[in-house]
Amino acid sequence: MKIDLKKDERIDDLEINDYKIIQHKDKFCFGMDAVLLSGFVTAGKDEKVIDLGTGTGVIPILLAAKEKGSSFTALEIQEESADMAKRSVMLNDLDNCIEVVEGDIKEASKLFGKAVFDVVTTNPPYMSETGGLINPNEAKAIARHEIKCTLEDVIREVKNLLKPGGRLFMVHRPNRLPEIFEELKANNMGAKRMQFVYPFKESKANMVLIEAVRGAKPEFKVEEALVIYSEKGKYSKQVLQIYGK
Amino acid sequence: MKIDLKKDERIDDLEINDYKIIQHKDKFCFGMDAVLLSGFVTAGKDEKVIDLGTGTGVIPILLAAKEKGSSFTALEIQEESADMAKRSVMLNDLDNCIEVVEGDIKEASKLFGKAVFDVVTTNPPYMSETGGLINPNEAKAIARHEIKCTLEDVIREVKNLLKPGGRLFMVHRPNRLPEIFEELKANNMGAKRMQFVYPFKESKANMVLIEAVRGAKPEFKVEEALVIYSEKGKYSKQVLQIYGK
Repeated sequence: MKIDLKKDERIDDLEINDYKIIQHKDKFCFGMDAVLLSGFVTAGKDEKVIDLGTGTGVIPILLAAKEKGSSFTALEIQEESADMAKRSVMLNDLDNCIEVVEGDIKEASKLFGKAVFDVVTTNPPYMSETGGLINPNEAKAIARHEIKCTLEDVIREVKNLLKPGGRLFMVHRPNRLPEIFEELKANNMGAKRMQFVYPFKESKANMVLIEAVRGAKPEFKVEEALVIYSEKGKYSKQVLQIYGK
Repeated sequence: MKIDLKKDERIDDLEINDYKIIQHKDKFCFGMDAVLLSGFVTAGKDEKVIDLGTGTGVIPILLAAKEKGSSFTALEIQEESADMAKRSVMLNDLDNCIEVVEGDIKEASKLFGKAVFDVVTTNPPYMSETGGLINPNEAKAIARHEIKCTLEDVIREVKNLLKPGGRLFMVHRPNRLPEIFEELKANNMGAKRMQFVYPFKESKANMVLIEAVRGAKPEFKVEEALVIYSEKGKYSKQVLQIYGK
């Protein structure tokens, strides 16, 4: 399918299923976070999935490629990102399974109803509004900082959207873990699994992948360490496997 | 110094400072947990330290060897363990800096007063009273299961014993993390640092080392992965370094 690109947009190869994604050179482009989250998610072929703050739609597109879930709703507040996501869905012929919706995470359960999804995925803004340097580029700032929604908003909406027993898969920064545990508990969600991501094996963790279950207290476990680079410039076997190499 | 051994006791080498420890062949013997915790602790030479549930006293002896802290109180509820700890302290000529006290963690702040320690260390029972197989050997069961004290008791007493700004260093099982975060928060303690311990690099984490601060909300971080074995039967460089090799 021929899709029109707007000024300064480009088409990147997702290196799986021959899928592509439209990104804008000056806006937030997907990173390793989204790729690792798509690897961490477990979802049956028939499950209904929503991605909160989907950006250009990379997570549902990767999940569709991996056959994790059958129908995907991709919610994004920024008009330009949502528009790129919609065109990427068409470009990959995924209109039958991915629906991109422009809207606010804080309103998600009003938009879609309560207790309707089996799985929620999210790669939310990592930094509290006051934390870190705010990017002067507004689109990047909204993707990275809690300007439009806080961690509290995200977890509350996750709980509202999930069926009882439904699962959240989230990628976040380790420094937010104390609040993440607090918000999960406040919303009667039980942490089930975490995986810490270490850039090199001698580095502190810089990401954490989280699975939590609505209305349950599962046995909690910490998966094997996920190390990104085996040496400088060389991806580890773990990462290559997630990329399907 | 010549120390009498009781029936079925033996003297083991701690492989640091030529220190030794008395252990009983049928009771709880110290493990990698205590060694890793002693490596994880940061304490100034002049700090006052208490170890809760010290068993045979391995943690304060290792900390004394590493000059982490100046005066140590070692609290143990089991008479026989406390007695072994006392004799190990004498054996290593550490009577001037380590005091072993037989008593109950739940009563610790009544015994020693509130807000009197700079540092608390603890390797508490890992399993809830109902979790896992209870060891028919009572001494081992008390060391491993929350028979005499729960996680809630431990953290409450930690808060009582610590000066404001004082630090807790604890080793525990990753599956208890949700409760650990909950109890820390309930006692106004802020998690500061964690390190996950992986037996092999392909294994799930089986221990977690935790630092938390009384009355503060420090920036939280996750240290590099601590991998025990580089291959079967061979300790990693990280572990050898903690052993001072």
